[in-house]
Amino acid sequence: MAFQSLPGFREFYPDAFARRKFVFDLWRRTAHAFGFAEYDAPVLEPLELYTTKSGEEIEGQLFNFVDKGGREVALRPEMTPTVCRLVGAKANALKRPIKWFSIAEFYRYERMQKGRGRCFTQFNADIFGEAGPEAEIELIALLIQCLAAFGLTEADFYVRLSDRTLWFHFLETLGLDEERSRAVLSAIDKYEKIGDAAFAPYGEKFGLLPDETKARILGFLGIKSFTALAAAFGEGTNEKISARLAEWRTLLDGLDSMGLGGFVTVDFGVVRGLAYYTGFVFEAFDRKGELRALAGGGRYDDLVAKLGGPNLPAVGFAIGDMTFALLLEQRGLTPPMVQAIDVFCVIGGEAERRAAFGDVHALRAAGYRVEYPMKEVGFGKQFKVAADSGAKLALIYGADELARGVVKIRNLMDRTEQDVPKDQLVVAVREFLN
Amino acid sequence: MAFQSLPGFREFYPDAFARRKFVFDLWRRTAHAFGFAEYDAPVLEPLELYTTKSGEEIEGQLFNFVDKGGREVALRPEMTPTVCRLVGAKANALKRPIKWFSIAEFYRYERMQKGRGRCFTQFNADIFGEAGPEAEIELIALLIQCLAAFGLTEADFYVRLSDRTLWFHFLETLGLDEERSRAVLSAIDKYEKIGDAAFAPYGEKFGLLPDETKARILGFLGIKSFTALAAAFGEGTNEKISARLAEWRTLLDGLDSMGLGGFVTVDFGVVRGLAYYTGFVFEAFDRKGELRALAGGGRYDDLVAKLGGPNLPAVGFAIGDMTFALLLEQRGLTPPMVQAIDVFCVIGGEAERRAAFGDVHALRAAGYRVEYPMKEVGFGKQFKVAADSGAKLALIYGADELARGVVKIRNLMDRTEQDVPKDQLVVAVREFLN
Repeated sequence: MAFQSLPGFREFYPDAFARRKFVFDLWRRTAHAFGFAEYDAPVLEPLELYTTKSGEEIEGQLFNFVDKGGREVALRPEMTPTVCRLVGAKANALKRPIKWFSIAEFYRYERMQKGRGRCFTQFNADIFGEAGPEAEIELIALLIQCLAAFGLTEADFYVRLSDRTLWFHFLETLGLDEERSRAVLSAIDKYEKIGDAAFAPYGEKFGLLPDETKARILGFLGIKSFTALAAAFGEGTNEKISARLAEWRTLLDGLDSMGLGGFVTVDFGVVRGLAYYTGFVFEAFDRKGELRALAGGGRYDDLVAKLGGPNLPAVGFAIGDMTFALLLEQRGLTPPMVQAIDVFCVIGGEAERRAAFGDVHALRAAGYRVEYPMKEVGFGKQFKVAADSGAKLALIYGADELARGVVKIRNLMDRTEQDVPKDQLVVAVREFLN
Repeated sequence: MAFQSLPGFREFYPDAFARRKFVFDLWRRTAHAFGFAEYDAPVLEPLELYTTKSGEEIEGQLFNFVDKGGREVALRPEMTPTVCRLVGAKANALKRPIKWFSIAEFYRYERMQKGRGRCFTQFNADIFGEAGPEAEIELIALLIQCLAAFGLTEADFYVRLSDRTLWFHFLETLGLDEERSRAVLSAIDKYEKIGDAAFAPYGEKFGLLPDETKARILGFLGIKSFTALAAAFGEGTNEKISARLAEWRTLLDGLDSMGLGGFVTVDFGVVRGLAYYTGFVFEAFDRKGELRALAGGGRYDDLVAKLGGPNLPAVGFAIGDMTFALLLEQRGLTPPMVQAIDVFCVIGGEAERRAAFGDVHALRAAGYRVEYPMKEVGFGKQFKVAADSGAKLALIYGADELARGVVKIRNLMDRTEQDVPKDQLVVAVREFLN
């Protein structure tokens, strides 16, 4: 073809579409079971929505332009600011907690690599109006079930749970002010990948961290269980930290009670780069550590107000479709594509075709997937097409059947045949197929 | 809120989303019954894809821009060129006839008015690889069923069927060459709206149409049935026209045999402005004539090749979601939104909450929609919430039930109650709800 799709954009031929739809449908059913309501929103938004949330530097990653009305606009790179606007605009009219989800496509002008294109789909789920860790219980349980529903187990993936609030409380006990704490969190965000070099920007700005401070930070980073966490902070030594640990206990007890404790690991290495998170943050990864994050999220209590709405606590997460598809593929869990038809009509000639058409349409209107040959072909060829199509039934419209006012139903599984009066056909097919 | 969505773009809060989803799901089920396979494609495409198909002037209606890689790109205004590319690229690998559909959003920078925004969704269905009117039978039947599935009848809408091939054959008999014929069709395209003034551009270019020629054109335009059409062209007087009328007969007989004849009107006033149609063209309208076209389509046998693919006959149509939603609303057929939950858990205190959580998760994993109060609230309040939620069952987790290892199931329809051992809960709920 003379034309190609743009680099990083995806075409979904029917097989690929069916695989993706299977994933989306199961996410949708899962979110529905958890009491989340689906919404949708514009693909194109004012650029300022994203620069206000993430800073001017986000523009470098966007598909942004000036529209014919002189507006600075961008293809959405994420859902969070948009859903904040929607909820913020009707915050008083919506019953709380507000539990919403969406399955939508996003666009970023990025260097392309495995598991990342310039467009991707995310399942986004958010809870607004609930400040306590009860919202995190609900969301992390949903996240886990969105993966477990496909047959993935604790052996396949896990959720790394961290907490920016606790990080700040802890860094405060080390004598770091908020600016220095933020610089430390930026270092932590990169520490897993680049090690000590991650602290260089901190050094440039504030001077080297004292060895003891750094040792304590790396010690905190090494905590991998709630038991260790509770042990690290003796009961009551710090009021803020004790109160926060009580919230940790609620969250982890809740997930344990749901039978999901085995999916969750305490891991303060997760801080989530984006600046707007305010409390618990979490990311899901494959256990083998071969893939990018499957999902990520956290609490962002300030964002609705920052975007012009009321004060409204919020927590949410997103699962990306591309890394998830890779994981399903690795585990052999890619859904099978079954596009089989229900009924194939074998048609003698033109008179029989006219007789068949009424039934074809009636059966389709009743919801059955029905095919027939568009052109006249021999019976033998038609039976071969019928067999190859995976159809369960063949309806035979021959001259003899036409004369007798019947249709011959052939069960393509056991090859039995039966004549059915034409006016009872839909009922007979329903009995066969249900 | 400080931010608004862009003019002409749409936000779908859960109620609006559910209404739209009901429509899309029914279109999807209908297309599936007709043996069409769903595909999807990029939102952003090379600008040239659209200018090649529709001419440079299309640019004025597009959201187009230069991306960060210097590419001229546009948000897709329609699906046809994209689906031609997809099918063209794999034409030899795809089993014919290729029957595809999609439900996707499109973008045009237009003046806004009722039933038309700057983004809209279309259901697109196309058949590739079938040159005869058998493809039109299949597509027009699908179009009709996509509307009829919602309860709309012959009294609500109809399909105006026309034919650019027959127009050209007819105009040839009047001595008009192809260029003049195209100018006449442009006039016909506007004649319904502006009357005689529609012929002014023809006059400017070629001089006035002779009165007799114009009278014959308007006579042809007045033909409203196949009987009148066949009568207008005496048997065998023109070979091309006779051959074409045989194809008309096949098409109309096919639709009649399907019981759909009453939906179809012959109407040569439909020519479809876009230049790329090559044969039958059709549009669906509400009978009252109050709304824009509900759907439109036709044959475009040259387009796949024009876009760089092989020669591949094609016919397709699109239904727009906005006008269709207006029609459903007018007829009182807007689907009801039922977002009722299955099970509401009434929870005593913290110990009961922990006991409930395992069941909540197990029931959700089994597909039931389950809610519970996130915070401790009194029993009375919880029962009120349960009743308001539309839940069918309440599960009661009190201290007494916890001590006895049971859950009390209250049927919220008939208010009967029953204790169920905790380990048999999922089975019991399934029995209640199925």
